[in-house]
This record gives sequence, C-alpha cells and structure tokens, in this order.
Amino acid sequence: MLHSDRFHAEKRLQAQALLAPGELWVIAARESKERPEPALKLLADVNVTWDSLFLLSRDDAAAIVGRFDADAVPDGWRVRPYDADLVGVLNEELNTFQPQRVLVNISETDPLCDGLTVGLYRRLQGWFAPHDLHSAEHLLGQLRSVKTPAEQQALREAVDVAEAHLEALRHALRTGWTAPDVVKFMHEQCAAVEGEPSWGWNSCPNVHIGPQARPSHALSADTQPLAPGMLLHIDYGVRLPHGYCSDIQRTYYLPRHGEGIPSEVQQAFGACWQAIEEGANTLRPGVPGWQVDAAARAKLVSLGYPEYQHALGHGLGRATHDGGTLLGPRWPRYGAAVEGQVRVGEVYTLELGSFVEGYGFVGLEEDVVVQENGLTWLSQRQNEVRLLAPR
Amino acid sequence: MLHSDRFHAEKRLQAQALLAPGELWVIAARESKERPEPALKLLADVNVTWDSLFLLSRDDAAAIVGRFDADAVPDGWRVRPYDADLVGVLNEELNTFQPQRVLVNISETDPLCDGLTVGLYRRLQGWFAPHDLHSAEHLLGQLRSVKTPAEQQALREAVDVAEAHLEALRHALRTGWTAPDVVKFMHEQCAAVEGEPSWGWNSCPNVHIGPQARPSHALSADTQPLAPGMLLHIDYGVRLPHGYCSDIQRTYYLPRHGEGIPSEVQQAFGACWQAIEEGANTLRPGVPGWQVDAAARAKLVSLGYPEYQHALGHGLGRATHDGGTLLGPRWPRYGAAVEGQVRVGEVYTLELGSFVEGYGFVGLEEDVVVQENGLTWLSQRQNEVRLLAPR
Repeated sequence: MLHSDRFHAEKRLQAQALLAPGELWVIAARESKERPEPALKLLADVNVTWDSLFLLSRDDAAAIVGRFDADAVPDGWRVRPYDADLVGVLNEELNTFQPQRVLVNISETDPLCDGLTVGLYRRLQGWFAPHDLHSAEHLLGQLRSVKTPAEQQALREAVDVAEAHLEALRHALRTGWTAPDVVKFMHEQCAAVEGEPSWGWNSCPNVHIGPQARPSHALSADTQPLAPGMLLHIDYGVRLPHGYCSDIQRTYYLPRHGEGIPSEVQQAFGACWQAIEEGANTLRPGVPGWQVDAAARAKLVSLGYPEYQHALGHGLGRATHDGGTLLGPRWPRYGAAVEGQVRVGEVYTLELGSFVEGYGFVGLEEDVVVQENGLTWLSQRQNEVRLLAPR
Repeated sequence: MLHSDRFHAEKRLQAQALLAPGELWVIAARESKERPEPALKLLADVNVTWDSLFLLSRDDAAAIVGRFDADAVPDGWRVRPYDADLVGVLNEELNTFQPQRVLVNISETDPLCDGLTVGLYRRLQGWFAPHDLHSAEHLLGQLRSVKTPAEQQALREAVDVAEAHLEALRHALRTGWTAPDVVKFMHEQCAAVEGEPSWGWNSCPNVHIGPQARPSHALSADTQPLAPGMLLHIDYGVRLPHGYCSDIQRTYYLPRHGEGIPSEVQQAFGACWQAIEEGANTLRPGVPGWQVDAAARAKLVSLGYPEYQHALGHGLGRATHDGGTLLGPRWPRYGAAVEGQVRVGEVYTLELGSFVEGYGFVGLEEDVVVQENGLTWLSQRQNEVRLLAPR
C-alpha cells in the first residue's frame, strides 16, 4: 500500500505549479485536531495547536508554527517556530515572499475549500494588512479534484477493497439479517484491513432492507429482518490507511421460492442503469457539472421514474465528498459548485436510485476517473440486480 | 461508564439557560465529518452533509438539515428537513423564533468558539438579513468551560484511567526502552479500554528521555534508549468512549547503581511543584486567567528557573485544549483568552516544567476542578520524582 507522505508532497508540488507568479497561498489553522483544515490535511500531515500559517508560492514553502509544533512539520516546508507572537516571523517571511496577491481558503459553495474561520480571518486581515485577502477557491478546488496518478491508484485500491467486502457480504447474507447486522459485518471487514468506513463508523454503511426503508445518511437502526421478496440496498465505502476512500452502492434481491427478479424491480434497475449510463456518456472534460446531472436526470424521468433528490455525483478522494465541481442540479443550495467544468484526472461518483413499491430501494453508485476522451470505471459496474441465495 | 447522549442533552439545556430572552444562537455546519463544528459536537452527536442550521433559544430548539441527515438528529431538536433550498424552512423558523439578536460562532481568540467559516458566514448574512450576526463567544466559552456534575465525573474517570495507565508504564519500563517503545505501550493501554490518546494516535503521548530531548507536541521518534542517570518525562491523556479526556504529565528517574535522586533534579522538581502550588492557590472564582499564570510563573522565576514558554493551564473537556479562559501570560498570541475570569465548575490543567542539564526534562501536569472556595484535584498530585526500578 502506498504511504501517505508521498501524496502530501505530491499535492504540495501540484499546488505550487497552479500558483501564478506573485501569488501567496496562506493556509491558516489552529487547534487543528479539533477543527481540521481540509487543505492542510491535503498538503501536510500535521496537527497544529497555536495559530499557524502555511505559506506557499510557486517556488517556496514556509510553515510558521508554535515552538512545540515545529517537530511535526513534514519535510518540504521551511519551519519558522515562534513563542509569544507570530507577527515578527510573519513580517520576515512577507519580506522574503514579496507577495502581490494573497489567497486564503474561503468559499461560499465548497465546504472543503472553506477552511478559514471568521475569527482567524479577522486576525489575518490585521497581520497581512495592507494586502487584501482573496479566495483560493479556484486553486484549491482544482487541486483537490484533479488527482495525481498515485492518488488515482490509491482510489482504485479503495474501490477494489470495498468491492471485495461487498462480495463477502453477498455470500454471508442470511434471511433474517437486519440493517444493524449488515453494518456490523461491514465494520468487521473495515477493521480487518485497518481501514475505516468512508463516512465514519457512526454513519457508514447505509443499509436499506425491504419496502419500508427510506434512504438516509444515518446509520440504520431499522430492525426489519431480510425476508424473501425484499430488496437490500447498501451504500458503502472504505478509507484505507493511506487516507483515500471509495463510495459504492449495490442492490440485491432475495427471491421468494422459485421466483426470479420481479419485473417492477427489473425495470427500475434498468432505468437507473440507463440514467447512470447517460450521465457517464456526458461526463467529458470541459462540460459543466450540472449538464452531467441533467442528462442522467432527464433520462430517468423520461423512463417514468421520479427525480432523485440529490446530485448525480461528487468528487471522491481523501473525503467521501471531496469538493470541487459537483455533478448536481442548479438548485440554490448547490450554488456555484455545479457550474465548474469537468477536468481530466478528476474522480467522481455516479449515483442515483428509485423506490419500488412493495420491494424496497434500488440504488446504484459507481466510481469513475475522467480521461481525455471519456472515462475509466474504477468500480466494476453492477449491470443487473444480484440475487441472494435463499438460506 | 456514562453514555454520551446524556452529556449532549445536558449541554443543550445548559446552553438554553444561558441565553437571554430574544436571543437566537445559530450553529451552522456542513460536511461536518471533514470540518467538525466543535459547538455542534458539544450539543448534538450528529454529522451533517448539506448546509445545516441548529437554532437554539431559551425555550426552543430546531435543526434545519438536508433530508438525508434528518434521521441522525438526536431527540430534543425539532427536525426541519429540506431538499433543494433551506431558505423557505428557515424563514418559517424565523417567524416562530422571532429573534431580536442572532448569535453565531465567531471568536478571534478561542479556536473552539470560532466554528463558523467565512464562506458559510457570508451565506448566513444573506439568509438572516436584516439581522446582524453577533459573536456567541461569551455564551459558548462559558458553556464549554463550566462542566456539569456529570461532565466532572466523566473527566474524573478519564484522569483515573490515565493514572492507571501511567502506573502500568512505570512498572513495565525497562532500561533500553526508547520513546517509541513508550508510545507503543501507552497506545496498547488506550486500545484496551476502547479509548484513544487525548490528542490523537499520531501525537500523544509526548515522551522525553534523557538530556537531549526537547519538549514538542509531536510524537517522538527519538531513539535514545533509557539508561541509568536519565529522566523520563511523559505527557499523556486518554479519551474514554464517552468523549471526555485527561491530560497529565509525570516525571520519572532511572538511578545509577546505588544512587538516589540527584540534587539538581530534586531541586528542579521542587521548584516546579511549588510553582504549580502557587498557581493552584491563586485559582479562585473571579480571578482573571492571566493572574493564575503570573503567580506560578513568578514563583518559578523566583526560585531561579526560566519561564516556561506556554500557558500554565487550559480548559479540559471533550477536547484536550477545551477553550474558554486560558491560564496564560498576556502574550499577543493568547489575546483575550487570558482575560476571562475563572468560574466555579471549570476544569483546568496546571502544567509546567524545566530542563535539568545532563539529566533531561522535569515536567508536571495536574487536572483540577474549580470550587467555590478553592479547588479539587482530579489527579493524584505527583509530590516527588518517582524512581524507576533498574531492570
């Protein structure tokens, strides 16, 4: 397995290549164990305690940190420790960097590019005066979403492992299992690879059994036992020790005696599959995110199914929702996130689903990498509802 | 062990009692798995994905969250799910709450009261117009730092467990152990109680062996083996499954054959102990934080030792550095945090240390609760340098 230090150094170099001459990108953090700065987690594997400033230009990188945090700053950053006050050290560094334009992590639409808190921002305004502080969103969104080859490989590993866990589940599932039973089984799979569920032990995986279940980000406490004639839907991913994660949905059906897949289930699955296919065909470099969602959404509706109440897809990386361009509808709450253009090297999920009255939820989610002329599937597409063996 | 849900409900009620009539406290969060809002972690054990607003007044509590997060909101909050846009639901709630003054989590000095990011703040300004958004710092600082009886009990448990782990270490320690050996041993202790090191697996405990070691917040990779004539200093705490943690420093000495504790070590320890005693005697309700630090600092200096380069003490709770009033010097980087007045029910660390040339670091840290007429020690004070048995 690839070690995480390599990713951090690569991302720092990638960030520096994205900076224009005269630009200084400032990642500000404090008590980052309690209030992690997502950009800092991407560029340097370090927690800081006191007010800390990570300064990055095209050709230089410096970290102003409290004395006791100095040892934890990784290679590649010039460490500038301070004791009582960082202003003296910062002024020296501003003399060295001579910035023309200072960028900080502010974004109204992308939570992972919005790492700067208001109180710390106000301190920065004083420290950096007379410089104005501009948003680093354009830079950071691209840095997060465009994955290096090593990151793509790490994501592929996370997908492979999740698929193996889902296969193990399919073989282990028994009539009578409840959602908490499935959760327990998947958590054991995670622990066995020293990983963790992609969106946390207390909310991943999401499991839906039978016609009464409704999708939720919460860990299901539903005690409906799996019985013949029911769908089982699972949304699962694993974060491997290198820090990158996967996000996959699969749908299984437990048939009644002698039964195949009911036609309503078959049809709904087919519609979901085709809608994802339509989205995948639209996912090309240069296309704005909302168009990819619109293609899938229109297909699903044209086949007689209701619109899904979320985005078709999101970036995938260290975070399950990794920020950057969103493949989502032009709804107010998505704001500018869906206006970004798809880029080569980005990794997205493609996901949607639909209820089938009397059976349960059909949901599909695949993970893909955008290439020059199309995309590469990281996951092995689910092409049909998988039947569970009655036991 | 106390279950965490109880703490969250208690803290919500405590917060409501601190609110004035007409005040509305808004905790705003999104993608809180990646960017936790410390105030939300204190009041409700929930992760949210989309833009979410937790609204609290003296007599009402409502949570506006995305549809798929609704199931995860704990009891005690009226859940208001939304799909495409939260504005409609928010306006209904503003009609219900009729706030005269809106408070949000902004603080220049207290990182744990500075949970609101700049981009989300700008969205809030639009959503809440024409209301101005005021800082909730005074409220949140007090809420975090004044512990309920149940929280004090949970902290006492975390201290007791950490002390048991340190005793186990003292008996296990062997000549030749390095800092990483000590870290491994303490991590095993944590895992055995299903806890975690108070400031994380990759930075706690901090271990210093021998005269070359220098204090740092980083996990020591120092390979200096423990040998006779050396001090071993450890800064350690454990967070128990209920979420509350401890923070303790202890100092041990491995004597040379037939030797007792060298007089320089003895003297330095005595000076540190007296300085902490002076701080403890000053720690009374109503005293500003900096005065407590000043008393300890002056004592240490009067005994001929250099000033420690940090604060004498910090709040302790769910976070190791739990925010609120800081017992620190009036240095620029501590800002207003040291101006707060000590309150009954607050839990603080008292910590300082000094180098002893040729032997290593002497450091002490105790955990205390402020009472009406003094304080209660949660930790069993270390009153002398503990000798390690040569093995």
